[in-house]
Amino acid sequence: MTRIKRLAVLTSGGDAPGMNACIRAIVLTASACNIEVIGFKHGFNGLLEQEYQTLHAMHVDNIIQRGGTILKSARCPALQQANGPAEAADALKQLDIDALIVIGGDGSFRGAMAISNFYDGQLIGVPGTIDNDVDGTDRTIGFATAIDTALDAIDKIRDTADAFERIFLVELMGRHSGYISLAAGIAGGAEQIICPEFGQLNPDNLRPIIKPIQHAQLLKGKSSYLIVVAENSYPGGATSLAEALTKAIGIECRACILGHIQRGGSPVGADRILATKLGAFAVEQLMHGATLVMAGEVNGEACLYPLAKTGDKAKAIDPFLVRWQQQIGSY
Amino acid sequence: MTRIKRLAVLTSGGDAPGMNACIRAIVLTASACNIEVIGFKHGFNGLLEQEYQTLHAMHVDNIIQRGGTILKSARCPALQQANGPAEAADALKQLDIDALIVIGGDGSFRGAMAISNFYDGQLIGVPGTIDNDVDGTDRTIGFATAIDTALDAIDKIRDTADAFERIFLVELMGRHSGYISLAAGIAGGAEQIICPEFGQLNPDNLRPIIKPIQHAQLLKGKSSYLIVVAENSYPGGATSLAEALTKAIGIECRACILGHIQRGGSPVGADRILATKLGAFAVEQLMHGATLVMAGEVNGEACLYPLAKTGDKAKAIDPFLVRWQQQIGSY
Amino acid sequence: MTRIKRLAVLTSGGDAPGMNACIRAIVLTASACNIEVIGFKHGFNGLLEQEYQTLHAMHVDNIIQRGGTILKSARCPALQQANGPAEAADALKQLDIDALIVIGGDGSFRGAMAISNFYDGQLIGVPGTIDNDVDGTDRTIGFATAIDTALDAIDKIRDTADAFERIFLVELMGRHSGYISLAAGIAGGAEQIICPEFGQLNPDNLRPIIKPIQHAQLLKGKSSYLIVVAENSYPGGATSLAEALTKAIGIECRACILGHIQRGGSPVGADRILATKLGAFAVEQLMHGATLVMAGEVNGEACLYPLAKTGDKAKAIDPFLVRWQQQIGSY
Amino acid sequence: MTRIKRLAVLTSGGDAPGMNACIRAIVLTASACNIEVIGFKHGFNGLLEQEYQTLHAMHVDNIIQRGGTILKSARCPALQQANGPAEAADALKQLDIDALIVIGGDGSFRGAMAISNFYDGQLIGVPGTIDNDVDGTDRTIGFATAIDTALDAIDKIRDTADAFERIFLVELMGRHSGYISLAAGIAGGAEQIICPEFGQLNPDNLRPIIKPIQHAQLLKGKSSYLIVVAENSYPGGATSLAEALTKAIGIECRACILGHIQRGGSPVGADRILATKLGAFAVEQLMHGATLVMAGEVNGEACLYPLAKTGDKAKAIDPFLVRWQQQIGSY
Repeated sequence: MTRIKRLAVLTSGGDAPGMNACIRAIVLTASACNIEVIGFKHGFNGLLEQEYQTLHAMHVDNIIQRGGTILKSARCPALQQANGPAEAADALKQLDIDALIVIGGDGSFRGAMAISNFYDGQLIGVPGTIDNDVDGTDRTIGFATAIDTALDAIDKIRDTADAFERIFLVELMGRHSGYISLAAGIAGGAEQIICPEFGQLNPDNLRPIIKPIQHAQLLKGKSSYLIVVAENSYPGGATSLAEALTKAIGIECRACILGHIQRGGSPVGADRILATKLGAFAVEQLMHGATLVMAGEVNGEACLYPLAKTGDKAKAIDPFLVRWQQQIGSY
Repeated sequence: MTRIKRLAVLTSGGDAPGMNACIRAIVLTASACNIEVIGFKHGFNGLLEQEYQTLHAMHVDNIIQRGGTILKSARCPALQQANGPAEAADALKQLDIDALIVIGGDGSFRGAMAISNFYDGQLIGVPGTIDNDVDGTDRTIGFATAIDTALDAIDKIRDTADAFERIFLVELMGRHSGYISLAAGIAGGAEQIICPEFGQLNPDNLRPIIKPIQHAQLLKGKSSYLIVVAENSYPGGATSLAEALTKAIGIECRACILGHIQRGGSPVGADRILATKLGAFAVEQLMHGATLVMAGEVNGEACLYPLAKTGDKAKAIDPFLVRWQQQIGSY
Repeated sequence: MTRIKRLAVLTSGGDAPGMNACIRAIVLTASACNIEVIGFKHGFNGLLEQEYQTLHAMHVDNIIQRGGTILKSARCPALQQANGPAEAADALKQLDIDALIVIGGDGSFRGAMAISNFYDGQLIGVPGTIDNDVDGTDRTIGFATAIDTALDAIDKIRDTADAFERIFLVELMGRHSGYISLAAGIAGGAEQIICPEFGQLNPDNLRPIIKPIQHAQLLKGKSSYLIVVAENSYPGGATSLAEALTKAIGIECRACILGHIQRGGSPVGADRILATKLGAFAVEQLMHGATLVMAGEVNGEACLYPLAKTGDKAKAIDPFLVRWQQQIGSY
Repeated sequence: MTRIKRLAVLTSGGDAPGMNACIRAIVLTASACNIEVIGFKHGFNGLLEQEYQTLHAMHVDNIIQRGGTILKSARCPALQQANGPAEAADALKQLDIDALIVIGGDGSFRGAMAISNFYDGQLIGVPGTIDNDVDGTDRTIGFATAIDTALDAIDKIRDTADAFERIFLVELMGRHSGYISLAAGIAGGAEQIICPEFGQLNPDNLRPIIKPIQHAQLLKGKSSYLIVVAENSYPGGATSLAEALTKAIGIECRACILGHIQRGGSPVGADRILATKLGAFAVEQLMHGATLVMAGEVNGEACLYPLAKTGDKAKAIDPFLVRWQQQIGSY
């Protein structure tokens, strides 16, 4: 057992529902092991500027269900400056921090690794991002909630699409991956799903999108038609695609960009449980000496993964569902 | 008592949550009085094309909680043709319709009035639109649900705005009125609300918007700042306004356009109750001979209002809340 | 204008969604008028024990959407002791409180009136209770949310009742009034609603309940049958009634007691707006000298009502809907 | 490839959110392979009585988001009669059914196996139950939604428990397993979780429950205390336990029995996706000749499992979380 006396935690990058549940689990687990916890504010900025608060059990009471993060989050350009990582390491030393837990995505983990060059303490990551684009874990904290938030919007749009017998395009987040779009699209019964993993769309050839629309209208007189579009999969996004489609098929296509509502909201059960598990696991593994790893979950079990490899993006989206959607979904 | 044997109902214009609850109440009330009910599909289009279905109690079972409308809705350019209204009247006569109930907004009611020039039967309107922009009723069916849908999104955006200490602009529907924006803005604790009733925004002078932002940041170090923007209150909408503000104050302002999710979803209790009340009242008043009126609710009581005056837009948004928001809300 | 320098607020009795929104409005309005606000904890207990906190704008930031009450609530037996009111008045004087705002139901208002016998400052009530059983206001803070919470449960039970073609009894709160039951029952499409206002049920004669059930089953082969039962309308509650019905008609009837989930949850828009309006209005009226009154809303307008008459229970539940439900609902 | 021309599907036992999504996937997948699908009504009853409907793509349009089951569900005592299985097999032959898909729990699967003794066609099960108590699959359809429904109630009760600083007991479903209770309890931040897997409670010795309550009150002055109680883990349920605790510790403990609301509601994304995947997989595997197996999901991959072993209950609840909750949760 490594003797850790003082532990720090921060949330970095885009906020994700469940970050608070993770902070809570870290604090409760550490407290039970007589480890002091401090929380840096605004991601790595709070570390650089030594803006922090001590976190006791009472500070994490009744936060498991809250969206956002009580520690605030932020991007941190200062850390990317030449002397940023060294300064961050200095701050950790000055504050007698034995270990730092970073809750965020692979970009935030790169920041942690940069610091490790100048820091003797332990560093561990916990994957918190709605995008699920982190290697070494089946799911990231916030992903499940983002799906249900998107789904809620899709269900509502379906109501009005159905009432009006219209074509709607719904653009979902995901940075450069289609996890949210595939999951929410399948769950929402979307007639088509357009995401980066399905190959780049050619704006000059919309036939692959148009054909199934016309097929559905011909064959089934289908009342509504929903296309889920992952962000960054068409130049100009869903709005441009809707305009192009309207022009091409002569039926009005409307776009709806969900945007930042996908980041907020009370986390669903799956995210709270994952966040609790990974937060608790991270503290335990720090006590076992772990460093430069991420606490993830694979096949239902908590496990460690090299922080350096979390950005590899080798993780595939469910091939069974991809195949099914392409064969049947747009039928 | 007027002897009505056959009654028709249609939903027209933008769909609104609660339209199904209204159809259900009409059918149940009529059935109890031995009146046959048919429903035209796709608004006035179904009337012109005689596309309809008979509606019995079993057809409206378990629809009170559904968004959209089982009768579908649509705009109907054909009715605005020179001979449209006469043809619609002919269809009503051919189908032996003694009375027609139109669920929709003031545009749909104008359609009904045009038909009345050629039709001897009774015509009654029920206000169904999320925008609440119909005179002669305190509330329209769908308004309460639209507020809560917008609010749900605002709460989620607040989570992420709060985590990031950012400025967000949320654009809400409402056509040319600010009912939804004022209600959702007040309920969401928005720091500013921009809507047509508060006077036209001058794109060349953003100071009235910028000043309170800077004041809040200076005085309170406020973590998040939310501005609710009614559609049609700034050229180019919230996206353009966000860009202009970002440029003017040097802090990134993000826009989120809620769009069509505001039309869908299971109606909240208030809308289901209003829809039930007005649907039942409309049938009863038809039996008492009412025609060319709208069934609305004023001060908690169902009442009739001339269909011809429903578009007058004399209805004011709550002056107490307007004043409070302007004095305090942006404090 | 009365010069108020220091204002106190407390929440008392059963908590209701929207109480936090009301506290927020009070603090923001008072702050804008340079009035200091303190909040007593745990209802009148905090007053008697001088347990309180100063409330600034930052303390009410981001609470408009939270259920419960940041000031905590409680019943206060100590206030009902012989010298309780005098001691409470003494505490108010010692703390230099010019005016006290009590957010609660008519029981809490009686407590405030008892104190007034010994206190020279101003006292004002704001109606906060899910039960809506306060005279002098059309709606109380929390009522709208309780309806939607009950409705959400009813919709879910309908799903399973429908799948199983079963009879379900759902017991809702409301103390001795049927406001919640009537509203949620109508909105949930309940086949029957049993509430105090419809007359006392005679346990020895269940025929008025059984007849419509048998009628529905005979006539329509209806798949599900939902009965909303207000608490205190049958000895032993919905569980006993379900057993009696099961025995009497030979079809299994199941009871579901919603209980305390009806008190919690994020307030819906209507409650947040009402709470904001009444909280702001209460402060303004105190500044105009008002005392021993309740700030309520009638016909959409904020207004004052003698605190002494708020428990009169002269307020009727919507007669139109009562009649309709009795004629049609159980059809 | 086995040539299947006609496929039947039925839902049996307690209904679960996602059953409709599963029916939809079965129909869409079969239609794409030119397999005709019929659906029996009311579980095995519809099979015995040959009450069924043909299911085309249009029948499953817009049902993915609906709770309950469009095919209705029921227990079927007739199937358990001596000649029940043989009669069911006869019905399948008469209707030229090549394969039957049963969506339900292990009890329903036993019914299917009984039929297999008299039937040459194929039989496949899909696990649909909120209780997650089926071996051979990590998750059952409906489990994820039940957790979030329970969680929503727990969050609401927390609001009022917190406002009142009270002790609440929330009883959740699960038959004889604690999956829902552990998951919802962890996710809800419950201070204690009582479920069958944690050992039988001895009504004569409540000390193991009482001690942590007193510890929490002493140590932290904790405002609210929530105990999640799985059904069937204390004689008389949560109501009796609450009474016993109130008596033992002198603080009022209140019980809330969630009951049947846990079965209903629109399925969350995870359940819709699982249901879609398993429904599609079941049809594909039938075409590959599979029979007397259940289509489940293990470690994210669809897989088959002997129907005869689904009731073994060897599946453990997450040992990491069990341990954590016992060490930390009640801290």
